[in-house]
Amino acid sequence: MSSTHCAALPDVQAAAARLRGRVRRTPVVGSGGLGRLAGRRLLFKCELFQKTGSFKIRGALNAIRSLVEEAQRAGAELPRAVVTHSSGNHGQALACAARKRCVLSALTAWLFHRTGIPAYIVVPRTAPRCKKAAIQAYSATLVPCEPSDESRAETAARVVEETGGIMVHPNQEPAVIAGQGTIALEVLEQVPEVNALVVPVGGGGMIAGIAVAVKALRPDVKVFAAEPCNADDCYQSKLRGELTPNLHPPDTIADAVKTSIGANTWPIIRDLVDDVLTVSEQEIKATTRLVWERMKLLIEPTAGVGVAAVLSEQFQAVSRDVQNVCVVLCGGNVDLSSLTWLTDLHGKAE
Amino acid sequence: MSSTHCAALPDVQAAAARLRGRVRRTPVVGSGGLGRLAGRRLLFKCELFQKTGSFKIRGALNAIRSLVEEAQRAGAELPRAVVTHSSGNHGQALACAARKRCVLSALTAWLFHRTGIPAYIVVPRTAPRCKKAAIQAYSATLVPCEPSDESRAETAARVVEETGGIMVHPNQEPAVIAGQGTIALEVLEQVPEVNALVVPVGGGGMIAGIAVAVKALRPDVKVFAAEPCNADDCYQSKLRGELTPNLHPPDTIADAVKTSIGANTWPIIRDLVDDVLTVSEQEIKATTRLVWERMKLLIEPTAGVGVAAVLSEQFQAVSRDVQNVCVVLCGGNVDLSSLTWLTDLHGKAE
Repeated sequence: MSSTHCAALPDVQAAAARLRGRVRRTPVVGSGGLGRLAGRRLLFKCELFQKTGSFKIRGALNAIRSLVEEAQRAGAELPRAVVTHSSGNHGQALACAARKRCVLSALTAWLFHRTGIPAYIVVPRTAPRCKKAAIQAYSATLVPCEPSDESRAETAARVVEETGGIMVHPNQEPAVIAGQGTIALEVLEQVPEVNALVVPVGGGGMIAGIAVAVKALRPDVKVFAAEPCNADDCYQSKLRGELTPNLHPPDTIADAVKTSIGANTWPIIRDLVDDVLTVSEQEIKATTRLVWERMKLLIEPTAGVGVAAVLSEQFQAVSRDVQNVCVVLCGGNVDLSSLTWLTDLHGKAE
Repeated sequence: MSSTHCAALPDVQAAAARLRGRVRRTPVVGSGGLGRLAGRRLLFKCELFQKTGSFKIRGALNAIRSLVEEAQRAGAELPRAVVTHSSGNHGQALACAARKRCVLSALTAWLFHRTGIPAYIVVPRTAPRCKKAAIQAYSATLVPCEPSDESRAETAARVVEETGGIMVHPNQEPAVIAGQGTIALEVLEQVPEVNALVVPVGGGGMIAGIAVAVKALRPDVKVFAAEPCNADDCYQSKLRGELTPNLHPPDTIADAVKTSIGANTWPIIRDLVDDVLTVSEQEIKATTRLVWERMKLLIEPTAGVGVAAVLSEQFQAVSRDVQNVCVVLCGGNVDLSSLTWLTDLHGKAE
């Protein structure tokens, strides 16, 4: 580990110990049909079957349990609250992770007279009703804000101040990064013959966690990032050798990777990620549909980004020694009430 | 086994031996969320992950391999062709099963100078393009007919005559029934604690095969049929104690169970199926959507019929001793270009 990295293998291993029995060890499945299209053996790590429908519970739960352990070690009070701004998978995950039975042992709950950590999720007023409902189903408090980055950040800061809570950043928080890295520990155990992992990148929390684990344990295994051409800040950053966030809010169907990589994930990505693959909107949509049709897995378009990358022209250039390729199907939280992109695609995909 | 039954446990066991390594042993998965809704432990046999996207390959392949074995035993010629009329899952399955590498050993193929059994699938002109394409992808010959039962039957009879082929009925053929029964052998091994199986019923091939296997091996395990109210011939038949086909072509989203049970499946259903549960179109649609959202499994609405049955009021009346309930998710061949039912449902399901 470079001293410039905020997380390393021991952090990921500690996260795995914290999460054991509390998150699902999701299966790795194959697909002969998609493998033939790619010309390699394709394996899929099914994080769409993870609790809350995405991998985000790993990082969120590791972050909250770390806070609780720290408080206990220091003989201090438990965190008064946790706060984040995310209408998407991290918001749901943090809300779920903060509930009592996830985060506190029975003894701790009794000792502290607590029934969990209150969670405040800042959500734009315009977020789909189904996403708000999912967060409320985990008993978290929704705090509405205007649909702009500034309003989100301001509102979250205000809630932190008002509640005395702790902000858990969706992708730059080191404990979140370490938590997502547990995906790699499982994949290396489940398919030791793996030659490469392909990971969608938004803020970069997942790929950073995976990269530190893989490169420490199995430096021969490649780690590829996959992102939409329309949100290619990771590609641009690697190309220029410096952190280069998306200039404008990106327009992509892959809503979970609209964010840019940040100060904590960039050094890890710079040093440990082998290459960045970019895919068009048409490729993402057609591939998502292909996975639905062929594999019967209801992945969200963001998971389609990784699959599209291994089916792309660009991936043909990767050495033929990279035979066993594992794509992380990061989530399955599809808004079923807005599938117009699917029907718009009709005719093109057939 | 009653002498009036066309298939019995030894037939199912022989089918399992024939299919070993040629079809997938699909996983059984749980769902805490849906189990809480049902008030019982729910398990799901994932035949949507089966080759060709449905359980139908089991029966089709058992039928064709039985024909080949018979020919070999008799020193006769291999079947000249196999024929069926089905635009749906059985058509795809028969087309797939008839290909060389599924049906003939390398030695047989060489001895007989054959590269498989030609398959002729009679399909209404009006069938969706995606279904026709799937059948053609398995190198079968599509024979168009008019969209009526008479035209289907007449066309299939003509093709049998012209090709010297053998008709493989989608649900009344005993070898098809025995092949579908292998699902039960797997479930009893995978979840020995199972108390009941819930099986969607159309022509009744799957439930008949499952019932003969279950009641011979584990008579304590209940077998429930599930069907749409709009296609309730199985329910009506059990009620009256005599085979009572649907009077009119049924109108249901569950397209794979529009057919009626028949002369071979009725006696088995009459004697061995414990009860028939019926569900409304609204229940089928909302439950299918629920499985997509919660389980991330792209089941077809016909599989939703079984899940809707265990979530229904009616199922609450089933004894509480029936604690571990396994629903067969029979298939995942959804026509993604016509999901209007899903968006029509918007608002109602939330």
